[in-house]
Amino acid sequence: MNEERWLLPAGIEEILPPQARVIETLRRELLDLYSSWGYELVIPPFIDYLESLLTGTGQDLDLQTFKLTDQLSGRLLGVRADMTPQVARIDAHHLRRETPTRLCYLGTVLHTRSDDFAGTRSPLQIGAEIYGHSGIESDVEILRLIMLTLRTAGIRETYLDLGHVGIYRGLARQAGLSPVQEHDLFDALQRKAISEIETLIATSGVVGAQARMLTALAELNGSDALERATRLLREADPRVRAAVDELRQLAAELQRWLPDVSIHYDLAELRGYRYKTGAVFAAFVPGWGLEIARGGRYDDIGRVFGRARPAVGFSTDLKELLRHGARQDAVDAAVYAPWSADAALQECIMRLRAAGRRVIQALPEGASGPHPSALGCRQQLVERGGRWELEDLLANQG
Amino acid sequence: MNEERWLLPAGIEEILPPQARVIETLRRELLDLYSSWGYELVIPPFIDYLESLLTGTGQDLDLQTFKLTDQLSGRLLGVRADMTPQVARIDAHHLRRETPTRLCYLGTVLHTRSDDFAGTRSPLQIGAEIYGHSGIESDVEILRLIMLTLRTAGIRETYLDLGHVGIYRGLARQAGLSPVQEHDLFDALQRKAISEIETLIATSGVVGAQARMLTALAELNGSDALERATRLLREADPRVRAAVDELRQLAAELQRWLPDVSIHYDLAELRGYRYKTGAVFAAFVPGWGLEIARGGRYDDIGRVFGRARPAVGFSTDLKELLRHGARQDAVDAAVYAPWSADAALQECIMRLRAAGRRVIQALPEGASGPHPSALGCRQQLVERGGRWELEDLLANQG
Repeated sequence: MNEERWLLPAGIEEILPPQARVIETLRRELLDLYSSWGYELVIPPFIDYLESLLTGTGQDLDLQTFKLTDQLSGRLLGVRADMTPQVARIDAHHLRRETPTRLCYLGTVLHTRSDDFAGTRSPLQIGAEIYGHSGIESDVEILRLIMLTLRTAGIRETYLDLGHVGIYRGLARQAGLSPVQEHDLFDALQRKAISEIETLIATSGVVGAQARMLTALAELNGSDALERATRLLREADPRVRAAVDELRQLAAELQRWLPDVSIHYDLAELRGYRYKTGAVFAAFVPGWGLEIARGGRYDDIGRVFGRARPAVGFSTDLKELLRHGARQDAVDAAVYAPWSADAALQECIMRLRAAGRRVIQALPEGASGPHPSALGCRQQLVERGGRWELEDLLANQG
Repeated sequence: MNEERWLLPAGIEEILPPQARVIETLRRELLDLYSSWGYELVIPPFIDYLESLLTGTGQDLDLQTFKLTDQLSGRLLGVRADMTPQVARIDAHHLRRETPTRLCYLGTVLHTRSDDFAGTRSPLQIGAEIYGHSGIESDVEILRLIMLTLRTAGIRETYLDLGHVGIYRGLARQAGLSPVQEHDLFDALQRKAISEIETLIATSGVVGAQARMLTALAELNGSDALERATRLLREADPRVRAAVDELRQLAAELQRWLPDVSIHYDLAELRGYRYKTGAVFAAFVPGWGLEIARGGRYDDIGRVFGRARPAVGFSTDLKELLRHGARQDAVDAAVYAPWSADAALQECIMRLRAAGRRVIQALPEGASGPHPSALGCRQQLVERGGRWELEDLLANQG
């Protein structure tokens, strides 16, 4: 049993030096980036009443949420599996501003199971959201922030994948699908299971143009998907065509704001379908099947907290960003100082530390103490003629 | 039910702007402080196998720990209620260095119940530890770091309370107390319940000098406690006298390193008695009964993870520090910029943001959009003769 005490649960990581420092550095750069764009930091709680965490978010999040019993209230608590509903509550209930509100957040979320094989169950979620603005300008701002986030993490090669939940939602309503049919077909569309999609449509009673349009959706992906959608969905409901138009306008704006980013479309890929209301997007890096960042519009998310207003945002996992990024964060070599309360030495150490240097003061251990270089030191403070000076340790050894 | 969705569980906080930014600022200053002293950041996991979290830490921590079932392994998990055992595991099992190792950490811990009436159940624990050095120099370094931590948080008036678990432990062994008797008397000593202490000793069968010394312990506090201890404990076991001597040496060193700090002694106040092995200390602020920071020596903590080595450290709650500190962190006023992809404007915005300014770009909303000052802006970017310039918003309104 003893040797098992250091084992960690699957998908739960501890982060050691120097990697922890690299995470801290990227964390600061991203929060400073968001702050410089006017996003204000909020810190939602790690646990919350379960109904508050899960209201309006659907079954997927429920399955992903660890449950706890509150000894004080006897009520069921959940460990947050996604911070977006908590941030929506902060906007709707606590801030209650009339103006557009930009918020950002960062923190560990926990999942009962990992999204992918051998993946993490404890992402370090970071994200940014705009509440109170419904135009595509806020979509554009969030997409620009996604690209800047990836670049800050050292990720150069990426592409964006855009969709719009209004298209499938409108087609399903137009065809008169029942909620169960809508759910099953949605599920098959996510997996692009063509024969399953065809069977579901054939047995649904939907025929003609409406059946053709629902079937066509599975193939409406790629960089020319919007042009094909105009043709293939010309008999659709005005709301469906409005959604396609909205996506086209967003694409045109992105051409102006992010001319170098390659954009794909996938009108059947609908992440977070249950609570999204407009454009949905994800960023990918080559050679990795899962999205590295995801987001979209979810205008109604605040309603359950008493105040629905437009909302768009994105989130990503800081640890995943570092795994795919090419950052080189070197840890500065430290300075070794003897153990002494000498005032001049203390003054000198204080100055170096205030200037950002790491100074390690010796802990006396007799003759057997470690050589300073074993502590990561490359310089040391030595006294010469009553003055303390920095001396190179390697030169001393050579 | 609807209006309850925004309620938070008792003792669980969410942190709104601008307070979240103040916490972020203090967090960075403290981690940078520890880094400049050579402390390396580690990030322990939020949940862990329960036995790994609780091994060697005693019953108090068990009661404070939220339990979860791991769906993957079927084993019991705990949400960390204290990060020290996790950091000890990192030193003992993962780093396995021969040299003294300085580690620091920061993160939320959760408690099933709060320590005090109406207090938090989610402290933001921050701490620093030295592994692999047994001299009082490492105790002194940790105590200096406590005082610097408090000063960084803007807390000026403090005092230190010192004790040593070796004194009571030695007296209890010398008196031949059973584990149950040792525990009960320990409990009564913490509460300074004099008549209960006298009854426990009278019924324990301990008599003479040993009974007198155990009884005296409850009164060995105050700034002259060490002098009185020398006299009152002169018939004690050599280990007890060695512990008093160690505390006296530590006090003498502190006179040199922290001449301005007032030091109290309390030889019966033994925080974390079960896993502490030497000096124990706490920092207090006037007018608040609970300690603001606590720490001590716990040389054996790594043994259960396969490697015992000397250890000393401290921890505190960042949110509590801010509550008692007198920091004035003002949020910079933002700059308002129109919605336009104009290259010169974008260049100008980028420069301002890179220089640390917050620039909020307008989100077009027609004529009814909010005035920039409602977004916290005090300046705006305006075009004059083809150049973008900063203009004062207040001047414009007057």
